Amino acid sequence: MGKRYPNLFAITMGDPAGIGPEISLKIFATNKLPKDCNLFIIGDAEILNYYKNLLSINKNLNLMESLQDYNKKSINVLDLKQITLKDFIIGKPQAICGRASYNYIIKAIRLCLSKKICGIITNPINKEALHLAKINYPGHTEILAKETNTKTFSMMFALENVYVVHVTTHVSLKQAINLINKKRVLNNIILLNDTLKRLGFKAPKIAVGGLNPHAGENGLFGSEEIQHILPAIKIAQQQNINVSGPYPPDTVFMRAFKGEFNGVVSMLHDHGFVALKSRNFEEGVNITIGLPIIRTSVGHGTAYDKAGKGIASENSLVEAIRSAVLLWKNRNK
Amino acid sequence: MGKRYPNLFAITMGDPAGIGPEISLKIFATNKLPKDCNLFIIGDAEILNYYKNLLSINKNLNLMESLQDYNKKSINVLDLKQITLKDFIIGKPQAICGRASYNYIIKAIRLCLSKKICGIITNPINKEALHLAKINYPGHTEILAKETNTKTFSMMFALENVYVVHVTTHVSLKQAINLINKKRVLNNIILLNDTLKRLGFKAPKIAVGGLNPHAGENGLFGSEEIQHILPAIKIAQQQNINVSGPYPPDTVFMRAFKGEFNGVVSMLHDHGFVALKSRNFEEGVNITIGLPIIRTSVGHGTAYDKAGKGIASENSLVEAIRSAVLLWKNRNK
Repeated sequence: MGKRYPNLFAITMGDPAGIGPEISLKIFATNKLPKDCNLFIIGDAEILNYYKNLLSINKNLNLMESLQDYNKKSINVLDLKQITLKDFIIGKPQAICGRASYNYIIKAIRLCLSKKICGIITNPINKEALHLAKINYPGHTEILAKETNTKTFSMMFALENVYVVHVTTHVSLKQAINLINKKRVLNNIILLNDTLKRLGFKAPKIAVGGLNPHAGENGLFGSEEIQHILPAIKIAQQQNINVSGPYPPDTVFMRAFKGEFNGVVSMLHDHGFVALKSRNFEEGVNITIGLPIIRTSVGHGTAYDKAGKGIASENSLVEAIRSAVLLWKNRNK
Repeated sequence: MGKRYPNLFAITMGDPAGIGPEISLKIFATNKLPKDCNLFIIGDAEILNYYKNLLSINKNLNLMESLQDYNKKSINVLDLKQITLKDFIIGKPQAICGRASYNYIIKAIRLCLSKKICGIITNPINKEALHLAKINYPGHTEILAKETNTKTFSMMFALENVYVVHVTTHVSLKQAINLINKKRVLNNIILLNDTLKRLGFKAPKIAVGGLNPHAGENGLFGSEEIQHILPAIKIAQQQNINVSGPYPPDTVFMRAFKGEFNGVVSMLHDHGFVALKSRNFEEGVNITIGLPIIRTSVGHGTAYDKAGKGIASENSLVEAIRSAVLLWKNRNK
């Protein structure tokens, strides 16, 4: 890592046809960024320059040949020259955009693995665009896991100071039920607890949601809580983790949002995500935990319908940057 | 039904140890009640009198011997003499309270079935109190279904002008998956559409949520959407119902809250309820549809921790009354 600029973080530009390029620039026109970090964008300078003019942003783009060229006074760009303005149209999934967005991420991961940068903040990519480019990953997380050779990882989502991990995600509901076991639940409790500590919570309060309605109503509506979830909670408690549950899925998130818990372990994709999205997850942050590198992301997607208009909010990207910086600062805790 | 007071509705007092008695009185100190209805409380006069003094409510209680005694200027009470103040303590589940709350409901159902009243608005009861009284129903809905001999019914929940029905509720997740079939989904679409029309929506826009994450991602994460849910939607569309889907469970509710849909058919208890409760369902309303009688309810529970303090909000009860009156007015639509 460059000696002059130690706290260096990469922001991937995301799908060129989405809102990634414009919000990547908008953040530099705010005073919301943490002071103790140096940010640069991995993307395409031509696209960023177009948006710089559209948004009338009063800073120079500094095109870096290498990380040594970082310039604190400019908006720094590592230009991967993947795509030009005439190659695509804004607001649609396209193969060339999928390919470009993938290459930005790969570059960021390599820089992170070789310890040249502290972490990655990703802008949204589009699954359909990836698919058109014959890159068959459902999303960022799977790319990150593959490239860093990581088996045990989890996605954490943060909104209104509540952090949520999911024990199961992109599988059918039938498969999800079969995936619920003591080990997986325990791993998620531990991952969440460790990450919350690194985010600055001293003794994080963690709640575990149930799988079944009313968390099984003492075995009346399903036995997974008794067989798998409660035993995992008990082991975690013996390890001095401040964890409790299983709580009914329909009230555990509400209780957390009201301040009772800092983190929630959610059994299903559509417990956690229904809760987060029914409040306004576009303002939230996504953190991949369990990786050997630091990676956070915006909570929203490419938002093709908004792209190119300069109207997309940069708040989620600012929050994602803040989380990445916190995780770096507290990395040895 | 009394000729002088045609639009007569009963409010059941709910569990005497919960917040039902106090909010039943509070509504009469507001100007939020619909003008075109006559309300009376089925409960215990001694309890209500205690709260009338506690809350300094400036209206008389009119103890009705029969419905003929209704007096527009008072707070009307059908006193079932189930319980006195010294029989119980506020804020705890107790057998005598479970028994009393059950008897208020039974009385209300009988009056409704014999067409002496137009509908019932229920205050919260407590499952544990019912259980202590050896009344083994999980809640109001099952009592209503039993007493009215109804097989096909559904619970509808309303919040911020979004109405939600659940295809499955109080069963394990494993059982819920097996209960998803074309007929059940179609019945719920039709019930929701009919009820929304009765609530005044001319051509209700209905969304159907999926069962699996991302609504199965075209069969990648489960096949129930393709096998059961989509065929039901197609039949409903052929019946000129303005229905679409299946949509990913994690975005369908958000889209409805933003105004895109009036109603959502939710496959699981913890899709709809996670969405509703993560926004503030205590302010919502619960409507049982498919019954031969009109019944609406507050969205919250007995709230034992708040009971007796006069601090509980009456907003949900007011909304429940409004919905019952609308359903009555539009009953022939």
